[in-house]
This record gives sequence, C-alpha cells and structure tokens, in this order.
Amino acid sequence: MKVFPSSTVSLAEHEGFTYTEGGVCAAEGFLANGLNCGLNPDKEKNDLALLYSTTPCATAAVYTTNKVQGAPIPVTKRHLDETGGMSRAVIANSKNANTCNADGEAKAEEMCRLAADALGLSPEEVLVASTGVIGQILPIEAIRGAIASLAAGLKPDGNKEAAYAIMTTDTVKKENAVSFRLGDTVCHLGGMAKGSGMIHPNMATTLNFITTDAAISPELLQCALSKVVKTTYNCLSIDGDTSTNDMVLVMANGQAGNEFVTSTRDPRYLVIEQALAIVMGNLTRMLAKDGEGATKLLTCTCSSAPDEDTAIIVAKSVIRSPLFKCAIFGEDANWGRVLCAIGYAEADFAIDKVDVDLVSEFGRIAVCRNGSGVPFSEETAAKILSSDEITVDVRLNQGKATGTAWGCDLTYDYVKINGDYRS
Amino acid sequence: MKVFPSSTVSLAEHEGFTYTEGGVCAAEGFLANGLNCGLNPDKEKNDLALLYSTTPCATAAVYTTNKVQGAPIPVTKRHLDETGGMSRAVIANSKNANTCNADGEAKAEEMCRLAADALGLSPEEVLVASTGVIGQILPIEAIRGAIASLAAGLKPDGNKEAAYAIMTTDTVKKENAVSFRLGDTVCHLGGMAKGSGMIHPNMATTLNFITTDAAISPELLQCALSKVVKTTYNCLSIDGDTSTNDMVLVMANGQAGNEFVTSTRDPRYLVIEQALAIVMGNLTRMLAKDGEGATKLLTCTCSSAPDEDTAIIVAKSVIRSPLFKCAIFGEDANWGRVLCAIGYAEADFAIDKVDVDLVSEFGRIAVCRNGSGVPFSEETAAKILSSDEITVDVRLNQGKATGTAWGCDLTYDYVKINGDYRS
Repeated sequence: MKVFPSSTVSLAEHEGFTYTEGGVCAAEGFLANGLNCGLNPDKEKNDLALLYSTTPCATAAVYTTNKVQGAPIPVTKRHLDETGGMSRAVIANSKNANTCNADGEAKAEEMCRLAADALGLSPEEVLVASTGVIGQILPIEAIRGAIASLAAGLKPDGNKEAAYAIMTTDTVKKENAVSFRLGDTVCHLGGMAKGSGMIHPNMATTLNFITTDAAISPELLQCALSKVVKTTYNCLSIDGDTSTNDMVLVMANGQAGNEFVTSTRDPRYLVIEQALAIVMGNLTRMLAKDGEGATKLLTCTCSSAPDEDTAIIVAKSVIRSPLFKCAIFGEDANWGRVLCAIGYAEADFAIDKVDVDLVSEFGRIAVCRNGSGVPFSEETAAKILSSDEITVDVRLNQGKATGTAWGCDLTYDYVKINGDYRS
Repeated sequence: MKVFPSSTVSLAEHEGFTYTEGGVCAAEGFLANGLNCGLNPDKEKNDLALLYSTTPCATAAVYTTNKVQGAPIPVTKRHLDETGGMSRAVIANSKNANTCNADGEAKAEEMCRLAADALGLSPEEVLVASTGVIGQILPIEAIRGAIASLAAGLKPDGNKEAAYAIMTTDTVKKENAVSFRLGDTVCHLGGMAKGSGMIHPNMATTLNFITTDAAISPELLQCALSKVVKTTYNCLSIDGDTSTNDMVLVMANGQAGNEFVTSTRDPRYLVIEQALAIVMGNLTRMLAKDGEGATKLLTCTCSSAPDEDTAIIVAKSVIRSPLFKCAIFGEDANWGRVLCAIGYAEADFAIDKVDVDLVSEFGRIAVCRNGSGVPFSEETAAKILSSDEITVDVRLNQGKATGTAWGCDLTYDYVKINGDYRS
C-alpha cells in the first residue's frame, strides 16, 4: 500500500498513461485565456477565465449539495439541460462568488451571453462559474469591458492564464494532464482546479474544469465523473465548510478521433475513467497540500474496514478534526486525537480492534493497537512528523474495504487569511 | 427575544430563582476539595477533585456518544447500574484522560476504591471522571499518595478548589448555582464545568458536575437532565471535536427536606427542571465564552423554523463554521459564510426565505433578506462586531420553532494551544 503521498502520483502502476503539459489545453481543440478585468484590484492577478472548444463537447457536471447555490450553478444546469449535455465554452471569474445576490442569475446569464456573442455561439452553449466573496453584487461591467479582449486572446497554451484567473487564496496553480491511448488513438485529459478554503465537498468540490479530446457520450462521461468524484474530491476537506459554488465540469470534444465510446462495458471506457481518476486524484492532493494556511499535506488511509463508505467516513473524520490538524501543525504526535476522531465518525464498527500508525518519508511508528496506546519513541515520532507530507494509517481490522481522505494542518495563517477575507 | 447573551442569564424572567454562591457546594450536605497530586507538574494547579455528599444521592448522568470512551465512563456507568442510580462521591482528575489505555478501567476502578476507602464508602458509591491527554498511562501512584489529604480536606466551601482541579485549558473556573423554593422548602442547585477544547457535545459535554439538595427520584432527575442537555450542552460547539470523556452527573441528596418528587406532573418537578436549565445554560455560555483561544462568545439564534431539531441543527451549523469563526475573530461582517453554513446544515427547509441579522450590545444590522444580501453600512457592522458577545439572528420564516447554539471565534491562540497540547 502506498502511504507516502506526493502531490502527483507515480504512473508506474498506471500502465499506458504519461504526464503531459497543458492542463485544460492538453487536449486537442481546447483554447483558453485569462486576464484581469478589474474584479481584483491587484492588476497583476487574473480574475476572469475563458475556456473554449473549437467543436461541441459532451459535458458532465457535479455540483455542491449546499442549499445555498451560487447563481452560476442553476444557470449552468439549465444550459446543460437545454443542450442535452453539450457545451462549447466556460466563463469563470474569481473574487466574487455571485451568490446570495437577488440579481445573481441575471448576471450569470449575462456572462454566458457576453461570451457567446464574442465567440459566435448561442448562450446555452456557454457554462459559467464564479468563486470569491459571497453576497456582494457582481460588477458585471468589468466583465462586459473585458470580454472582447478575453476572447481574442484565446490560445492553445492559455491554460496557465486561465488557471491563474480562477485562483483565490491559492498560492500555486493547480493543473494536471495525462496522455493515453484508446486503441491506436492518442488521447489527452487534463484539468485545472482552484482551492483553497471552504472545502469540504459533498458530491463535488470547488471549481474544477477538465477537458479531454476522447470521444465519449455525455451519459458515460457523467457516469465516470460521478464515480471518480466519490473517491477524490469528496474525500478532501480543508476546513469542513462546504462551498456554495462547488462545480466540476468535464468536457469531451472527441477531436482525438477515437471510435465513440458508448458503453461502460467497452474496455476503453475504463481507460477514460482511469485517466479521470489520475487527474482528479492529483488535483485533490494539490488542493489539500495548498489548503488555506497549510504547511503539511495530511492523508488518512483507512483499511480493513467493513465497507468502503465506512472507510471513507473514518478517514474524513480524522483529517477534518481541528484538534488533530493543530497537533500536526505543531508536529506533536497526539494520536489520542486520531482515536477520538475515529470514535465520533458516524459509522458502525468496533473501536477496540483499531490500529494506528503515523507514517512519512522519514519512517513509520505504531501508536495504537487494539484501540489502546502502545509505547513509542517521541524522538522518532518527531522526526516522522517533521515531513511536510504525513499519513495516518488506520486499520479497522474488521473487513476488506479501504478509503483515503486528504486534508492539511490548521495553522495561524488559516486564521489570518480568514479573519479578513473580504478585504 | 433576548439576543444579547451574557455568560449568566438575567433571572428577571425566572421568578422565584436567586443566584447564590457555592457552586457544587451550594446545596446542603455537599463537601468538596481539590489539590495538586502531581499529575500536573505545575504545583500551583490543582489536578484532583473530590465531591462528597454526607447522605446518598439520586444520580443522573449523560455521557459522550464517541465510540472511544474514556475508562471512567464504563466504570461510572457500571457503578450507577449496581446502585440503581445512587451515589455518594465523585473523584475526578485533569491532565490525563485515562483513555485508550489497556489498563484504563482497572485504574479508574482503583480511583473509586481509593476514594471509597478514604470516605468509608463502598467503591460502587463512588463515580469517576478524567480529562486531559488521551492515550497516556495514568500515573495512579500520584492519586494513591494524595487521596488521604484530599479526603481530609473536604469542606463545605471546597467548591473552588474542586472547580480549579478539573480545569484544563480553561482560563477561568466555571461555577453557577441558584436557590429556589419547592413549596415552603428552600432548595439549592449548583454546578461546575470544565472546558475548553474538544467540545462538540452529542448527548453530553465535557466534565460537568451538578448537585442539589432537592429530594427527587433518580428516574425523574434523569428525565430532567436528558431534556435540558438537549438545549444547553448539546447546543455548544467550540471546535467540532466530540470528546471521549464527556460526562454530566447530577446528584440530588434530598437534604433540603422537601417532600419527595416522583412525578413529571408534579409542578415541583418543573421547578427543578428549570433550576437545572438555568445552571446548565449558564455553564454552557461560560464554556463557549472561554473556548480555547476564544476572544468572543458567538451565539446563533434560529427562529421561525419548521421544528426545534431544524432550528438547533441550523444554529449549530453556523457557530461551527471555521470560516465564519475566523471572520468573527477578524470582526469582518462576512455574512455570506453564515448563509453558506445554513445552506449545508443537514435539515429540510427552504433557503430563499431566510433572513439574517448581526446583533450585539452595540446594535443590530440586517445583512440578508429572503436568502439574498441587502446593502448595509460596513461602519455599523464593524461597531457591532467589536463587541465580545455577538449574536447571529437567523429567521427561517417557515414555522414557529426556535433553537439557540453557542460557540466562539477561531483564533491564533486556538492553533497555538493545540499545536503542542501534550507538553
């Protein structure tokens, strides 16, 4: 079992996949751009992104389960309904979530219309996403003024400008892409994501855009996304706050030229699903490692669980615990807090069989056996916890299922960032 | 509706109740003591408490729902089972939770035996509680060495020594007591509690000991406790971590001499329940205000909800949100985070009817109507948020039920305290 996570998984165990540059532009026929339109007073920081496919895309999506939904969400849902799951472009802004505003949907529709006009599309072919402060009126005139130059600047290597535009408190861009073969055809799948707070996904996470040139139906693409999101973004928690604007979009334009994939029994379907799992898994770890204020990536693997749901619930409970997150920041082997968090996980299992190890590149130490503490060297523990990637290895010893969740430590900087987020 | 909470409620609306000194010693026949036995290397800090009644007590209890249970919990449960809900004494220590230790129950039993021997009781008449670091072996010899002097020092005004002994990261003692009449008989009910982290109760909270000299059956006392805990401690969250050692004990020795209360239809039962609600409510607010690292008491009132459970779930979701807690620390009126937290509360209601105001002793400001933001003065908002007691007033506008939850802001000091808690 792999217990030393790094932001990008080794492809050694994923035969036939190769990392490639380009993020959302890695796939054929996708252009992107990003710029500062004035939503962000820092003129150096992009705040508006456009993603465009030269041909129509089968499109899959998952959204936040928060009852409060950013205005872009119903608009995007409606457009995908109207087109039967097809799209051509996405417009996305940061700095303003366009959420809890009485005029929110009208503004989100206008964003689509502006992009459609500039691109020669119909508005329902354009999807929309926003991230930033909730409850402030979106200054749409900034977007109106910038749309022409945004569209004119679309380019096959504009992924970095776009990835930069969707960043909020992120400290690094999150992009990942792979190439792979479907039969004899070389395909690509790549994506970008933004973090890094209000992240406790439930059916989706944050803003996340993935493109592929594989040819696949919207229904199958949705099937793959819905499956993969369960073990990637939905196993991520930065702070336990489920965002109002979470959205993952996957767009497939088929320009690779493979024969259309239309059945989950087609072996090529599994290859596409695996590509999605690799890219979404990597983006998940990048999001965790760059969580607001984070200094350490925290991974919890839960194995020998009665079922996968239990494994995931337990793993998420551990990486969500504020007390344990603080202890990890302090590099304090306070494993009792791991047991505490396992104990209040809402799942059905026996606590007195549980084993816990703390693991990093610097070693592994047993801290708990059968639910009780075992003596360990504080010196060794301190060495292990000095790594910036810590794994808590939990074994329930009552089944065969596994689950993994990702998070980060809780630091002074999280408090600082969020004490005055709106300014 | 009262929207300016203070740690102690006004008794104006509670006719017949008067605040009194004495905490757990306010009731007749209860003696207490506390001292440093050496669990805490700081010799100035008490770490061992003893509470004793000169006559047997009807006893009610609620415990944590964490699957990991501190060893004192099964021991206390067993003793109450064996005595049919009667007890005479409680021994409690801080600095070590005696949890996740293979020898935990044996040590907890020994604590009871030591106290019983010193007091001339049988061990099952003694209840036991521990709080502190999880997963470290309890150095029982420290308790053995101190028990004689602890028992010898029991006194009718020993409540402060005892309250000091159960404190962990608390910055102030938490005690509260009232006197009231049952017919012509003057009775007392008082308690002490410890905070101030790992607090997200579920059927109980933290360590909490309440005594009364009213005469009431164990069954009725349990009935009152189970009801009151739902709207007091179970509506408190410091950090979302449900402790392994939560326990509330209520002991009633009947020494006031009132006629025995044996029916919930007896009007005197309601008076006792009200006394319990006042004292537990006050202790709840004290715990919230002294949450780890807290600078502000945060209260969320949720009204016009379809039912009480929904009201409480919504109120708890707001006061638990790390993002909103940080904003309150920063005195930033980021009300969008309130809506976000209301939106992910797991309850069934319509979000587009929700109104939110921010309230303190310095005024009230409307920030949201019908789920959308309304313009407000940032200057007025900043003034309101400069108070150390902030209320978020949420109105769902879809029913008649209400609920209130208490918490605190999330600060640098929370991270600092918990980055290195074990040392």
